[in-house]
Amino acid sequence: MPQPLVRVTRRLHFNAAHRLYRPDWTDERNAEVFGPCANPHWHGHNYEIEVTVEGTINPETGYVMDLGDLKDRVNESVIDQVDHRNLNVEVPWLEGLNPTTENFVVAIWTRLEPLLPSGVRLARLVLWETPRNYVEYEGELAPSSS
Amino acid sequence: MPQPLVRVTRRLHFNAAHRLYRPDWTDERNAEVFGPCANPHWHGHNYEIEVTVEGTINPETGYVMDLGDLKDRVNESVIDQVDHRNLNVEVPWLEGLNPTTENFVVAIWTRLEPLLPSGVRLARLVLWETPRNYVEYEGELAPSSS
Amino acid sequence: MPQPLVRVTRRLHFNAAHRLYRPDWTDERNAEVFGPCANPHWHGHNYEIEVTVEGTINPETGYVMDLGDLKDRVNESVIDQVDHRNLNVEVPWLEGLNPTTENFVVAIWTRLEPLLPSGVRLARLVLWETPRNYVEYEGELAPSSS
Amino acid sequence: MPQPLVRVTRRLHFNAAHRLYRPDWTDERNAEVFGPCANPHWHGHNYEIEVTVEGTINPETGYVMDLGDLKDRVNESVIDQVDHRNLNVEVPWLEGLNPTTENFVVAIWTRLEPLLPSGVRLARLVLWETPRNYVEYEGELAPSSS
Amino acid sequence: MPQPLVRVTRRLHFNAAHRLYRPDWTDERNAEVFGPCANPHWHGHNYEIEVTVEGTINPETGYVMDLGDLKDRVNESVIDQVDHRNLNVEVPWLEGLNPTTENFVVAIWTRLEPLLPSGVRLARLVLWETPRNYVEYEGELAPSSS
Amino acid sequence: MPQPLVRVTRRLHFNAAHRLYRPDWTDERNAEVFGPCANPHWHGHNYEIEVTVEGTINPETGYVMDLGDLKDRVNESVIDQVDHRNLNVEVPWLEGLNPTTENFVVAIWTRLEPLLPSGVRLARLVLWETPRNYVEYEGELAPSSS
Repeated sequence: MPQPLVRVTRRLHFNAAHRLYRPDWTDERNAEVFGPCANPHWHGHNYEIEVTVEGTINPETGYVMDLGDLKDRVNESVIDQVDHRNLNVEVPWLEGLNPTTENFVVAIWTRLEPLLPSGVRLARLVLWETPRNYVEYEGELAPSSS
Repeated sequence: MPQPLVRVTRRLHFNAAHRLYRPDWTDERNAEVFGPCANPHWHGHNYEIEVTVEGTINPETGYVMDLGDLKDRVNESVIDQVDHRNLNVEVPWLEGLNPTTENFVVAIWTRLEPLLPSGVRLARLVLWETPRNYVEYEGELAPSSS
Repeated sequence: MPQPLVRVTRRLHFNAAHRLYRPDWTDERNAEVFGPCANPHWHGHNYEIEVTVEGTINPETGYVMDLGDLKDRVNESVIDQVDHRNLNVEVPWLEGLNPTTENFVVAIWTRLEPLLPSGVRLARLVLWETPRNYVEYEGELAPSSS
Repeated sequence: MPQPLVRVTRRLHFNAAHRLYRPDWTDERNAEVFGPCANPHWHGHNYEIEVTVEGTINPETGYVMDLGDLKDRVNESVIDQVDHRNLNVEVPWLEGLNPTTENFVVAIWTRLEPLLPSGVRLARLVLWETPRNYVEYEGELAPSSS
Repeated sequence: MPQPLVRVTRRLHFNAAHRLYRPDWTDERNAEVFGPCANPHWHGHNYEIEVTVEGTINPETGYVMDLGDLKDRVNESVIDQVDHRNLNVEVPWLEGLNPTTENFVVAIWTRLEPLLPSGVRLARLVLWETPRNYVEYEGELAPSSS
Repeated sequence: MPQPLVRVTRRLHFNAAHRLYRPDWTDERNAEVFGPCANPHWHGHNYEIEVTVEGTINPETGYVMDLGDLKDRVNESVIDQVDHRNLNVEVPWLEGLNPTTENFVVAIWTRLEPLLPSGVRLARLVLWETPRNYVEYEGELAPSSS
């Protein structure tokens, strides 16, 4: 019998410093494109991230996935490495990336997706940079344009 | 002429006691799998539920559905039966279910869906158990694994 | 290589007066259908709107779209025209519409969609009328019923 | 034995239309002083009000005051008269007042204070006009300036 | 030189089951006074507590008090004993008390106050039972009525 | 006749980078006392600040103080100088201070207080560093201990 597909979400918090800039651009160009976000002395944010996994309900436990287990995996593979850190210089898996929220959310997806247990899939990440701005990624790829 | 498909959502609040456990398991096994949520003396939550219906806009009223009417239907069929209640022992339509948020949201869907007026469909339920955890259900079924 | 499709959202605030009614109905009929929302002396709301655009990440900037630019476009084409206004009598592009949240969100979509730069598409509008009620529109049309 | 003095608060919601202006000023003067808030076609808000009463804990019930009873009194004497209304023209006890949040909160205090049961006193009102602006009043009077 | 007196607050979360009733009253009397809160099968809440301490700023650290240290003390003496618990039957320091929010906040005050380090004083507790209801206690006692 | 004393509050947002440390301490000592907040590569926050002024209501306008005027003064003297900045190295009026939330709020008070117009006084600052931590200052000084 077909089973309901349910999504469960855990929301977590961290904070970090960053700046938006390209090392191959002049300071003027960086300031022009990224405005105050290019400040060479850094700025920072309290980030909120919502991690959503999807699957059927395990008939034995009533869980799609134990949210404590999900929290532990996200903490170990993501939060512990970015909380109270500088995203430009201290996070190996962001190296070479301009840490916009867009690049950041895709990098988190790439890290988290293979770490989920079998039977569930990573369905959505929502990353809030401020209470007014957020990005979402569901693993979707654009059709090639060529 | 094709008409816009719009979703309207009403958010409601209730609180309830529950515990997570299986009567056919030992206390030890329940504690191991469900942790403090298995506490035999119960614990409880303030739940928030978002009920979303989808349809075209009635050209006469400008409504997809009167949200006051939606609120009344959800109150009568769901909220009044779970608010200030014990989900394990006082709610006939949860009988035999371990009241995880996942099982709970699917049971609410099953109750609410047939009660909506013609012309709209139940599109999504979001059920918050704490400000950090929520589940979503859109009525989707998993393909049979055969 | 296929590129990730990411959604970025900017949340904005405004407030306005309105009433729900049809000029071709009697006051009694309006009161019966729209309740206190039909009050001829108006009432009002603090609205919150979330504007979501979708696209691939520009490899040069790391942005799907500059959210400052998005904010400016939404402010100019929508917020500046409805903030501290009366939706029934002061907004040309709502003329002839009963300003329900449903009609309002579709009218905003129609205005905003052509104003986005090439490379991104308007993916979703969420319009909150109160902290308990919101509508969503993603540009989807209902299949004709013929 | 001296008893603890505890404050209990109930938060309630309503929405209303208003404009800020003085009938004895020209439109120009009103626009200059009150900006877009003077719009003759009105605008409106979702208000949140927090009503706080203070007293000792009734040893029989464990309540300072039944919050359901408090809610009923606030609804009857305040909310029912302003919700979905125009503050300038439909509320007798605001007549002659420019409905700024400051004047509004003092008028609510004057109405509510005599309606509380003996044994508790009205301790504070907090009135939110937007998520960014609020006023507070605790019944305090300024020393006369002579 | 006189030093600024600053208040620092840490907000924490827990959830619990409870019911409001007096064992020396009949079920009818309990239901009449406490309404659905008297449900013999329990109900529950997500509580939020704000713990505020006041003191001068330590010139060496710039802290009034290390908020990590405050969090640890509150967790050990309060949260760990009430989280996922039944307030009526599992918490020795609430024994014999009807667990209204008022009685609960005073009991927490009594526990926490002696546990703070010298140099700071417990200045305020705010305990939210639902997003609409909260109580505050600042350690103040009512003048005896004699 | 004595006039009501009313408090009006404006809430504003900014973000910044900082680290907690003393230049006269070793890295080890800084890490021991300030934990991850001492990270030499910085971290950051989205701050929220609530600025409260108190006064009587101007009988001509119905305002204690025009909140737009208050916002402008706070933006010019505080927000514009800290938003998207590094609190340790880019803010002259924080120079030599360890930028804990406690030191920060007192420094903001010292700047803002003389800038208010006559007739109102700065009554309270609340500074949120994260959604779980905040500090408050009302200009009060501790009695000298000597």
